[in-house]
Amino acid sequence: MPTTEKIDLQAYTLEVAERAKRASRAMASLPGSVKAAWLRRAAEALRSSKGALDEANAADIAAAPDFGLTDAQIDRLRLTPDRIEGIATGLENVAALPDPIGSLIGSTMRPNGLRIDKVRCPLGVVFFIYESRPNVTADAAAICAKAGNAVILRGGKEAQHSSRTIVDILARAAKETGVPENAVQLVTTTDREAVGHFLRMNDLIDVAIPRGGEGLIRRVAAEATMPVIKHFDGNCHVYVDADADLAMAEAIVVNSKCQRMGVCNAAESLLVHANVAEKFVPRIGAALAAEGVELRGCPKTCQWLPNAVSATDADYAAEFLGPVISVRIVSSVDEAIDHINQYGSGHTDAIVTGSLAVARQFSDQVDSAAVMINASTRFNDGAEFGLGAEIGISTDKFHARGPCGIEELTCYKYVVQGEGQIRS
Amino acid sequence: MPTTEKIDLQAYTLEVAERAKRASRAMASLPGSVKAAWLRRAAEALRSSKGALDEANAADIAAAPDFGLTDAQIDRLRLTPDRIEGIATGLENVAALPDPIGSLIGSTMRPNGLRIDKVRCPLGVVFFIYESRPNVTADAAAICAKAGNAVILRGGKEAQHSSRTIVDILARAAKETGVPENAVQLVTTTDREAVGHFLRMNDLIDVAIPRGGEGLIRRVAAEATMPVIKHFDGNCHVYVDADADLAMAEAIVVNSKCQRMGVCNAAESLLVHANVAEKFVPRIGAALAAEGVELRGCPKTCQWLPNAVSATDADYAAEFLGPVISVRIVSSVDEAIDHINQYGSGHTDAIVTGSLAVARQFSDQVDSAAVMINASTRFNDGAEFGLGAEIGISTDKFHARGPCGIEELTCYKYVVQGEGQIRS
Repeated sequence: MPTTEKIDLQAYTLEVAERAKRASRAMASLPGSVKAAWLRRAAEALRSSKGALDEANAADIAAAPDFGLTDAQIDRLRLTPDRIEGIATGLENVAALPDPIGSLIGSTMRPNGLRIDKVRCPLGVVFFIYESRPNVTADAAAICAKAGNAVILRGGKEAQHSSRTIVDILARAAKETGVPENAVQLVTTTDREAVGHFLRMNDLIDVAIPRGGEGLIRRVAAEATMPVIKHFDGNCHVYVDADADLAMAEAIVVNSKCQRMGVCNAAESLLVHANVAEKFVPRIGAALAAEGVELRGCPKTCQWLPNAVSATDADYAAEFLGPVISVRIVSSVDEAIDHINQYGSGHTDAIVTGSLAVARQFSDQVDSAAVMINASTRFNDGAEFGLGAEIGISTDKFHARGPCGIEELTCYKYVVQGEGQIRS
Repeated sequence: MPTTEKIDLQAYTLEVAERAKRASRAMASLPGSVKAAWLRRAAEALRSSKGALDEANAADIAAAPDFGLTDAQIDRLRLTPDRIEGIATGLENVAALPDPIGSLIGSTMRPNGLRIDKVRCPLGVVFFIYESRPNVTADAAAICAKAGNAVILRGGKEAQHSSRTIVDILARAAKETGVPENAVQLVTTTDREAVGHFLRMNDLIDVAIPRGGEGLIRRVAAEATMPVIKHFDGNCHVYVDADADLAMAEAIVVNSKCQRMGVCNAAESLLVHANVAEKFVPRIGAALAAEGVELRGCPKTCQWLPNAVSATDADYAAEFLGPVISVRIVSSVDEAIDHINQYGSGHTDAIVTGSLAVARQFSDQVDSAAVMINASTRFNDGAEFGLGAEIGISTDKFHARGPCGIEELTCYKYVVQGEGQIRS
């Protein structure tokens, strides 16, 4: 009876969201010391629950072939002792971060004696949708809760047993330390329609955060009735200016492209100023070829690099996530900026230059979450930025842009203190 | 041929949005002095354009009865010499505010020598949809542009001639002072479908801001594919605590309810602690009755106020925007907080109390944009908060909450400065 099932799914998701909403009220004024004690207790409990974690993880690994997972995907699923220790340490690191809630963002004393305080407070309820990797379950729970939110976790079915065990450990530690048990809830159904139900509940859920493939993120962005923190892709550029130190440029391009190719802050496109192209293009061509990277170039690039393939417009727009890079010679920094603003994802774009004026123009006018001056694109990352913990990277401009840490999971309220003031 | 017309509407709106996007690129790095000079020039031009403004306004006033406008609405449409001076002064006030763009929000020096700057920058393109009142045209244009954005204005058809003239004056002043002409564009078609076209363009428009009736705002929120800054309604509360100074409480309740009844930060509901109800309810009942306010109360309220009507659940949820208030006796601050979080709009809620602990609990746990301690709800306003200018009030928690000034029309980017750093 599919109709009955649908109604149950709706009732179930509503119940989860309402529990989260109630928990979020209590979380909002929970002392920082309680949240920290909980995360430290959970870390200990994880370390001493090796047996339960191994058993749950073995069930996931056994089921993995049925889900059509590749060997690499199965490996990412595996909870080795090192990984369990990593998860526990991650919880302790989040516990040690300063509590953001209740801190004063700003304060104004008005002529009539009213004091207007802008105070940091939680967003409320976070709906986090992610694919496999059991460690993400603990990371996301910790960072959302540290920011005073309740979180609904919707993990991939591939890691369901491992995630269930981790959330159970978190819930037990919550109970022991006085944290609302429903601060962290794992969605127990793997029915994809459950996600749709949650995405319609903008009265109960304050933000949706999808992490995974572009298909998942596009689905969430299209269906969500609440704000979404997301990035679709990362078509990141390195622009080598006329005033660049070419040895530095080579190191930055190779690092941006090759240090890890499958990630969103890896470079996908190289722009070279015409004045240095004759010197630089053959040099970088050789360096990238040595790393096994295929070059797709503009006509001028292909002149200097007989091995380069002719680039299409689609190549300039592509996020290759692999050993391919597009290359274009530009006649000015303006042309480089226009190219980046047209083809880029607003994620991470770098310039290599010795010119202060050109660096300033580039950082002012490139409309991206992060602009790197004489540094690799690979540094756009919460840990590298010193945020302590990260829930994702945003290429949107509203609320959160770039790496999203704990602060990006908070908002503010105004608290106005008077002594009986009325408005005349 | 309706089909052709539809295609034209789509082409027209796309053209407007693309022009805005191009203008936003130039606006992003326009010096603050240029924006200020433009707004001052436009203020002068408004003052010396009385003839053109009178003529345009007369055309709107003449057409008003055809649109079924009430006398009060027609009055709001009228551009008197005082109002023209008010608009001009408003532009000069915005010109005088500090330029937010390019300022450093924060900066971190990383161990590897990277300097991570968080820099304030514009959102990009703002789509502003509003009803009548020609002064809003100038106010909105000024505040959006001061924040470095391009703005698409979609005003009500009732004020179309007046708005057109104001935008022409702004555009002429822009040309004379070196501001991109398309920084401010007025949508020239009054076809309501144009709004739908714009709301689908999340690749060109960064935020939509509707201002007007709840119907307009709900339509924009439902159709928009980009973020929206909005509030649907303002069901604002005053809670009179057991520890309240009752004279202060009376003044604050009367002011919150009666100082201006038709606005979103007026009080719609009164909560009274049981310990002071016997003393306070008859007193406030008389004071409100003297102002012509109808009271709809809980059973206990009705005991003390024979003239009070019995309140329904719908009354507790209602934004009356007129001479009605709901009243409920509560047995604790917790009950007051629960009532507000259940029935309120998250807009503005006040407490009157002498207790520091109760004030703190209330401000921590009431989940609203503004919490007033011993002050009227009517103070939740950009000018009263000292923001300089305001584009609206948000009851959302994402990005902007409470009165939205110039800063809420900006975002940030990370600018990372290195000397050749690569990631290992």
